This record gives sequence, structure tokens and C-alpha cells, in this order.
Amino acid sequence: MPRVIESVPNISEGRRLEVVQAAVDALASVPGVRVLDVQSDRDHNRSVISLAGDEKSLPDALLNLFDVALTRIDLRSHQGEHPRAGAVDVVPFIPIEGATTADCVALARQLGQAVAERFHLPVFLYEDAATAPHRRSLEDVRRGQFEGLAEKLRDPQWKPDFGPAVPHPSGGVAIIGARMPLIAYNINLGTADLEVAKRIARAIRHSGGGFRYVKAMGVMLEERKLAQVSINMTDYKKTPLHRVFEAVRSEAERYGVSVVGSEIVGLVPAQALIDAADHFLRLENFNPSQVLERKLRESD
Amino acid sequence: MPRVIESVPNISEGRRLEVVQAAVDALASVPGVRVLDVQSDRDHNRSVISLAGDEKSLPDALLNLFDVALTRIDLRSHQGEHPRAGAVDVVPFIPIEGATTADCVALARQLGQAVAERFHLPVFLYEDAATAPHRRSLEDVRRGQFEGLAEKLRDPQWKPDFGPAVPHPSGGVAIIGARMPLIAYNINLGTADLEVAKRIARAIRHSGGGFRYVKAMGVMLEERKLAQVSINMTDYKKTPLHRVFEAVRSEAERYGVSVVGSEIVGLVPAQALIDAADHFLRLENFNPSQVLERKLRESD
Repeated sequence: MPRVIESVPNISEGRRLEVVQAAVDALASVPGVRVLDVQSDRDHNRSVISLAGDEKSLPDALLNLFDVALTRIDLRSHQGEHPRAGAVDVVPFIPIEGATTADCVALARQLGQAVAERFHLPVFLYEDAATAPHRRSLEDVRRGQFEGLAEKLRDPQWKPDFGPAVPHPSGGVAIIGARMPLIAYNINLGTADLEVAKRIARAIRHSGGGFRYVKAMGVMLEERKLAQVSINMTDYKKTPLHRVFEAVRSEAERYGVSVVGSEIVGLVPAQALIDAADHFLRLENFNPSQVLERKLRESD
Repeated sequence: MPRVIESVPNISEGRRLEVVQAAVDALASVPGVRVLDVQSDRDHNRSVISLAGDEKSLPDALLNLFDVALTRIDLRSHQGEHPRAGAVDVVPFIPIEGATTADCVALARQLGQAVAERFHLPVFLYEDAATAPHRRSLEDVRRGQFEGLAEKLRDPQWKPDFGPAVPHPSGGVAIIGARMPLIAYNINLGTADLEVAKRIARAIRHSGGGFRYVKAMGVMLEERKLAQVSINMTDYKKTPLHRVFEAVRSEAERYGVSVVGSEIVGLVPAQALIDAADHFLRLENFNPSQVLERKLRESD
């Protein structure tokens, strides 16, 4: 089966759409790469590009992207609401099909080294590709932004993983890594009491002592007069959907509140739903290769 | 997204493997067709070939198959345990991805007409492609087998849908149709009492007053000392997995018996499991296009 890996480079340009288009063209010019989505934000002055490919095509495409971005974006004159430290600010690799996190870490290292050599750009590895615990979090790596880079890179704690310890004059640094796909998952409660949703959110999220790969908050659905536990699942393999659903149901019961429904916002890997079916149907020895569509693609 | 349709032609040859190979080669020679599986049975003297393709490639491939089978198989000298009425006995089309039952019915009619014209072979349409209720069931269409065809075809009730009302001298007839993918789904009970499994099977199966698209029987898992409800799901869209699971759980409770697990034998369409997750997670407004892998293939 061909490996499918996603990458979601964020570039520091959301206003000059001809530059964004040049970046997209540079990515799409590589055979085997599919550009899935492009979102440009004027206020953030930033674009988020989703693409899919394999371990051969993606690095070529992303090197093209760095070439365009470092030529056409100058952070010395860049303004926008979103924090940024690089012309190509962040590049995560995400395993989708037939690929593992380890594959994506290897890809992040490979691209990081190539980018550093070709463009004399300092590169930090983050999330699952991080080389030290204090470098895992994107926010920590980016703290100080472009303007603070010269000083940050003098700190031995922030020696780049690849490339020189001085920022690229116009392009800053690149932050390249590997992470699992995110799932935006919301659970709606049969109550208009926002406080219940907030308490449940605290109970299930990592920062409150809950599941390791869960971020959550309570919000109010004003139109439906329902409180919602709004969740980001950062690793559906280690903290699966069904466990979070059951935990919210159990916590809600303590307040005499029912779960009236849930929703997935945006995309979800098929495996996350298949894992939920596996759980609730109490499947024994179910193997992903029994999924018909997967079998079909194995024979591609 | 490219349409994916499966076809599972059954040919009346399971001993002369060079003939089976010629049949497989004839199918695989058409670009866009993938042969997924070949099962030959000596006792049945029959082979079951699974292939996938689209509405363009499949009819070409299957016409090639008829050509080989009608040249190399002679039912006048065929013996085997499995009932058969044609050299190519049965050809179902099965919607897998981006295709509907209606698409498969159209394909069955198209192939039936082409086969009748090219090979002067009588063709019956069955299951979802049937042109009358008494022709839906494969068993009914095939009753009397090859040897009884001359007489059967004289009955106006059994006028073929395409082709002459006399059987092909060596090739008999062809039975072509459309059906949903089958799911073999077993539910294991926390009891060694086979009678409980038999009663539950009766309660849930169509013939016993249960679900329309369920066939079921009670069997004993001797090694595990567990009774099992062994189920064939013939249309998972209209009778979904979760409904059958919950019905078995509820019926078992009545005997104080628990459901200890379930198993899927062989292949299952991803959608059947996603539908189960949708149910148990109480998803609101979930759309199949939110499945990441599907989104990726849409951009193929």
C-alpha cells in the first residue's frame, strides 16, 4: 500500500495572494503531491496549506516551498496578528495511511537537514520530532518570535537542531516536526448550564488531571441553549474517541445531565471511527486489513 | 472520486487450474481492473473470483471472462457438488465507493445485454437487478440447474431478461445481478447454552420475523465453550451492525446472558463501521466527506 503522509506548512504571507499562489504552485509542481486546502488570513498575514504525498515527493515539494517563501517573504517588514518566527514558519508531518509517527519524525529530520544546508536556515524540530522535552511545544520554540531570534539562538538551550545559530536575515528560522492528526470533537450536553460543561472539560483535559491527549473547554451553544464540551484530541490512538465520550457521559451523569449528541468538526481519520466501532461492538481480533477499502488500496 | 465497484463472478471450473488461470488473465488484462482474490474448490468444481474496477473497465473484463469460460467449459460434462446453471454461473455487481446499487443494476443490465448479443446466451437478472419478485433469489433462478434449463425456459415465467429462450448448448445461462456487500458478523454470548443462541438467532433473522437483511443461526464455539449467534448481514445500510448488536444484547439479557464479544469474518466496508461509530458516539450531522482518507481520494 502506498504510504500517505500529510503536511500542513504555515507560511507568513496571507495578504499578497500572488505570493501564496506561487507557493502553492511550487508545491503542486512535484508529481505525487496533492494540495488539499489553502487558507489565507489577512489579519494573521499567514496561510495554512494542506498537502498529501509520500516520503519521496513531500520533501521535494517543501524544498520548493522554502525556495519561494525565502525569496518573496521578508519578515523584517512582516506584520500580522499571528506569532511567527519564519517565512515558512511551521511544517508538521502527519501520518495518515500506512505510515507511522516514526516515519514522520524521520521525514522532519531529513527536511530539516536539507533546508539548513540549502538555505543556511536554522531549523528546530518540535512535537514528536523534538530532541529535548523543552522543545516539544511549538509555542515554546516560537516564543520571542522573529524579532527575538538573534538573542534566543545565543542561548545554548536553543541551539538549532540543524543549521547556523544565527537567524536567516529575512527568513528567520523554520520549525519542523511530526504530530498525529488533530480531531476537533465536541460533545453536547442536555443542559443550558455552562458551568457543567466547564467542570467536565476540566475533568477530562490533560491540564486538569484528565486524559493526556485531550484539550477541552466548556462553551455555550447560544442558539440551541445547550452547553458543549469542546475538545481537541491530539492523539486519537492513545486517547481514543470512545473513551472521551464515555468519560463525558459519566461525568455528566453526576450532574443528572445527558449527552444529547456529539460532532466532529472538519476531517477525521477513518481509523478513529473504526476504533470507536471496534470498542462499542466489542469486536474480537479485528484487523485493519479487514476493511474492504484498505484491501482495495493494497492492490493498487 | 473514482467509482469503485466489486464483482464476484463464479465460474463452473475448480479442477483444471489452467482454465481458471486463463479466466483470471482475461479479467486482469483490462486496465483499471484489479483481481483481488481467487478461490477454487475441487469438490464444488467451481471458482469464485473477486475483482474491483469501475463501470467502464468491469464490463470489458467480464466479457473477456465469458469468452474464455464459454470456450473452455462444457456443462454437459461438468460434475460438482455446487448447483450451477452456467459456465459463468453468477455475476453480482457490488457498490463499494462512490457507487450506488442503482449504478450496479445499470451495470448488470448493460453486461447482460452485451453477453446475450455476443454469445447468444440467455441471461437472468437477479437480486436488486431482478425484473420480477420471483426472480430476486439466486436459488430460485438457478433451481433445476443446467440439466433442467431447456424445460424451465419454456415457462413464460422464466423467459430470460436478455437473449434466446433456449439454453446455450454448453454454457447454459448466465445469472447477473446487483447486491450490497455481505458482512459475516458473529456475536459471542457468555453462555455455553446453545439453545439461547438459537432463540436469539430466530428472533433477529428475517425468516423468524426479525430484521429484513439478517440471516442468523445459533452455533457452538466448542473450544471456548461459548454459544454464538452467527449472522449474515445482507444490507448493512438498511439493517446496520449496531442495531443487530443492540438487539442481540437485549434478547440475551432476557436470559441473563451477556455479550462477551463479536467478530467480523473477512472483509467489511469502512462505512459499516463508521455508521456504528456514528450511532454509539451520537454524532450529529456527520458527513462521509469528513473522513480524511475519502477526502484524499477525492483529490486523486
